[in-house]
Amino acid sequence: MTWHIIEGEAGCAFARERGAVALVVDALRASATAAMLLHHGARELWVVREVEEAFAAREQWPDALLYGERGGLPPAGFDGGNSPAEAEAAAGRRVVFTTTTGAGRLVAAWGAPAAYLATTLNASAAAAAARSHGHDVVLIPAGLMDDTDFDAQEDRVAAVAIAMQAREVPRQGRDTYDIWRPRIEKEGLEALFQAAPHADKLRAIGKEADIALCARLDVTDMVCRAVEAKPPGVIVRAEPANRKIL
Amino acid sequence: MTWHIIEGEAGCAFARERGAVALVVDALRASATAAMLLHHGARELWVVREVEEAFAAREQWPDALLYGERGGLPPAGFDGGNSPAEAEAAAGRRVVFTTTTGAGRLVAAWGAPAAYLATTLNASAAAAAARSHGHDVVLIPAGLMDDTDFDAQEDRVAAVAIAMQAREVPRQGRDTYDIWRPRIEKEGLEALFQAAPHADKLRAIGKEADIALCARLDVTDMVCRAVEAKPPGVIVRAEPANRKIL
Repeated sequence: MTWHIIEGEAGCAFARERGAVALVVDALRASATAAMLLHHGARELWVVREVEEAFAAREQWPDALLYGERGGLPPAGFDGGNSPAEAEAAAGRRVVFTTTTGAGRLVAAWGAPAAYLATTLNASAAAAAARSHGHDVVLIPAGLMDDTDFDAQEDRVAAVAIAMQAREVPRQGRDTYDIWRPRIEKEGLEALFQAAPHADKLRAIGKEADIALCARLDVTDMVCRAVEAKPPGVIVRAEPANRKIL
Repeated sequence: MTWHIIEGEAGCAFARERGAVALVVDALRASATAAMLLHHGARELWVVREVEEAFAAREQWPDALLYGERGGLPPAGFDGGNSPAEAEAAAGRRVVFTTTTGAGRLVAAWGAPAAYLATTLNASAAAAAARSHGHDVVLIPAGLMDDTDFDAQEDRVAAVAIAMQAREVPRQGRDTYDIWRPRIEKEGLEALFQAAPHADKLRAIGKEADIALCARLDVTDMVCRAVEAKPPGVIVRAEPANRKIL
């Protein structure tokens, strides 16, 4: 079983074409928000790429809450943002979830033998879940959409943190592992997240508290697995099944 | 125009799916051998993945020479190996060329807007050719085939060297750029090639002289472009057209 780190849509294509388990890592903040939504008892997430798709999805799920962001903030009419701090309010509810990058990457990873959203918050649990399938594993730092201009290094930092918890050295993406592992050990996750260009964007919109919330390690055992294609997106449920809703 | 470094088949898939110009970098030694074959006046290369395909290709090209390697050495019945030192012997000839990794990666990159074999030997020329198409560019360190167990870091070193000659900082593959650029500047290409695990394999089969030959920068303006699909492979010709054969 071989682990890889391959950024962005190339990682999604690799997971599908090679049959590798996909761990989509959008550390600031989609993977963190999804993990905490399920941790706090949201029943399931319908992850879609586009804001219009999210509104249309809620037509089919009239009881659902709309969570997500564009430009870091919830679009008008949404019930919550893309923030782990807002996750508790969705306890017991279904959630339609759309974000600029991570949501689309997870949808693009559908077709892999298994696809998860994962980050530092559930690093060890996600690593164990990924390993359980007996396939190669590809950590996919969500990276950048075409219209953004900064380097999403926190996604690569979080991917390395997951590899470290898994005690796996990636075969592809070895440079990413070699550059960030010593820095994680020396500086710690939070310092690296705070220093990422993306953190400046979050501070600029008043979301600085989320940076520390998203940089914690192994605060939940819940992993977020895409379990079902439901066009135009995928349904994500907790693995193990969320005890709070059983 | 954005440049990326994406290793292996993920890079090939990205080039095809996103319409990025592909520069396949197999620094030890397929890209170097191809560059020097064309530099010394080989007319064209028919690049195929498999040894059996190479013999079948020569049935169609009875005048051609067979060059390439398995396990680093030319298979029995071949006219030459995968070595820039043997390139001059193919002056004026057509060549069927197969190697363990680089040949297959170039075939897999077919479907990109343009696909080249490139390395340090023709770094500046390859960078200029890649830029000429007006598309994004993906440097593809050929990396590893499934059955090999070492880290082909020299391919990533050469990819960074090409990016440096192009004065481009890659968007994907930024860690690879950040880790190798200062080492290239401080230690030089040859020291890094000599220190690569792949160099040990070449020394073990008596091909140590090739390491220095492959680590030179900008010794030819000839670039190796896949110009035509000719199943089961692709035809590579020189760009600019090889003056020695005109």
